Amino acid sequence: MPGLPGDGRTPSDVSPIPTSAVHAAAAPLRTRAGDYFQDLQDRITGALEAEDPGARFREDVWTRAGGGGGRTRVIVDAPLLEKGGVGFSAVHGELPDELAAQVPGQGRDFFATGVSLVLHPRSPRVPTVHANFRYVEKGDRAWFGGGSDLTPCYLVEDDAVHFHRTWKAVCDRHDPAYYPRFKKWCDDYFHLAHRGETRGVGGLFFDYLDGDLEARFAFVRDCGAAFLDAYLPIVRRRRDEPWGDAERRWQLTRRGRYVEFNLLYDRGTVFGLKTGGRVESILMSLPLQARWGYDEQPPPGSPEAALVDVLRQPREWVR
Amino acid sequence: MPGLPGDGRTPSDVSPIPTSAVHAAAAPLRTRAGDYFQDLQDRITGALEAEDPGARFREDVWTRAGGGGGRTRVIVDAPLLEKGGVGFSAVHGELPDELAAQVPGQGRDFFATGVSLVLHPRSPRVPTVHANFRYVEKGDRAWFGGGSDLTPCYLVEDDAVHFHRTWKAVCDRHDPAYYPRFKKWCDDYFHLAHRGETRGVGGLFFDYLDGDLEARFAFVRDCGAAFLDAYLPIVRRRRDEPWGDAERRWQLTRRGRYVEFNLLYDRGTVFGLKTGGRVESILMSLPLQARWGYDEQPPPGSPEAALVDVLRQPREWVR
Repeated sequence: MPGLPGDGRTPSDVSPIPTSAVHAAAAPLRTRAGDYFQDLQDRITGALEAEDPGARFREDVWTRAGGGGGRTRVIVDAPLLEKGGVGFSAVHGELPDELAAQVPGQGRDFFATGVSLVLHPRSPRVPTVHANFRYVEKGDRAWFGGGSDLTPCYLVEDDAVHFHRTWKAVCDRHDPAYYPRFKKWCDDYFHLAHRGETRGVGGLFFDYLDGDLEARFAFVRDCGAAFLDAYLPIVRRRRDEPWGDAERRWQLTRRGRYVEFNLLYDRGTVFGLKTGGRVESILMSLPLQARWGYDEQPPPGSPEAALVDVLRQPREWVR
Repeated sequence: MPGLPGDGRTPSDVSPIPTSAVHAAAAPLRTRAGDYFQDLQDRITGALEAEDPGARFREDVWTRAGGGGGRTRVIVDAPLLEKGGVGFSAVHGELPDELAAQVPGQGRDFFATGVSLVLHPRSPRVPTVHANFRYVEKGDRAWFGGGSDLTPCYLVEDDAVHFHRTWKAVCDRHDPAYYPRFKKWCDDYFHLAHRGETRGVGGLFFDYLDGDLEARFAFVRDCGAAFLDAYLPIVRRRRDEPWGDAERRWQLTRRGRYVEFNLLYDRGTVFGLKTGGRVESILMSLPLQARWGYDEQPPPGSPEAALVDVLRQPREWVR
């Protein structure tokens, strides 16, 4: 169950499913959300294949013993993407007690559908990106969650500004309170406490978005549509920049940090693995290679140190 | 605090520190144990340097803000060892509430000293090895813990038998019940539930060994003395065997599993990182490089598959 249970914040006041909204449209929201996420996966993998000529995602369709299933698409060793995974899933059933207690809504019955992706480009000049958008029902509650964050090996301020500006524009079309709230939530969530660093230069993170679910769905669809606009211009600007062994080595060290975050802190990963999720679909988020030297610190004033500085002190990229 | 809190089993019946035993000898047990572990670190790093001519461990002496400190010795990119860490520490102070509740003994005051090592050889033919021996006091309780496990990339039955036979001989000199109990504890503890695999071919794992602490200390000293006998003959038998890119790639995949175990399951690692331990000393256990492909399964009947088979179905190596 990628994306469950979000970041562990479990507000006690998540509101009931507004039955009128759910049933007003032609199909239940869970059906429309699932159809939307499946289509979003198609659009994103199609655009990435167009960006990386000759590269094709491998597709694995799987079913979950407890109910539902998914469609995992992975690319390995392509010219642009060293490794990338874009997964769709729509799963339902009963949560284990331990997990059920940490997710809003009565009982253990749940439904969750969403898209989750992580792209690790080959070039150390092109940032890694993650995005996840999901719709969840449990007991009498329902909500949307999601977000997207950018993880460069080298800080390029213009890229961070472009990424945040894209997400802020989406947020501002729906609620002016969204961007500042979700930007901070992202910095707080994608945080490696033991390193005193964020995973990257942030983006958006949100969860338990309930209330007017049709309006929330419209926001999530707007986010889904904006993902390629947020990321591809950065890819195009950086993909032809030169790099060598020193940059590759730093990239592998940063990828070690990515592994640390996903295995130590990411709730979706940890709970997914511990509750019998499909291991290969969950761990498709890990990079093809990673490196752990001993106590390697970038020299002060180096481009590598400039990245670490901003990870230790997250910035406001747009006002 | 490497080695704390062991495997999460927290017996309620760990017995009080036998004051007579602690004070009978010239110095308190915590002092003698600390001196012993520091000397054990010297002996092990000395033997490893002799085995890997020209290679020298880098030493970092550190202090812990809350009390105590340690001596971390790491080797990177040596001819025999791609990465190896042998740490000594003797720390004391107050455990955070969350951790204190999971460790036997009243209150939050603790003392812990021990040696912890992980050696990742360059050759895929030479297994990775881990060992940890420790003495812990908390409140009115005190105990020894430790163990050692072998993680080959390729199964060589003779090596597994030699490793287990060495540890069984140590155990049998102290208590015939030790080996079967600690061998099983090792298989249970070093288990990647999400993979359905043990980390390697096992060895010993024990914790909360109390009662006659002088006798327990004698057992742990016997273990410490046996470590090089358990491991170095395997190194010498395998280090000159040929290997190529395919073996290296499999090694990196297995090292990915090692990272998964340490970051997802190892209590010492997870709690150490989350309670402000020295990050570089804790993560010296991670390999220099690791790899995560997508859904890579070794072909049935291959040497790689033979390893996975035994990880999925742990064997009795000695009777």
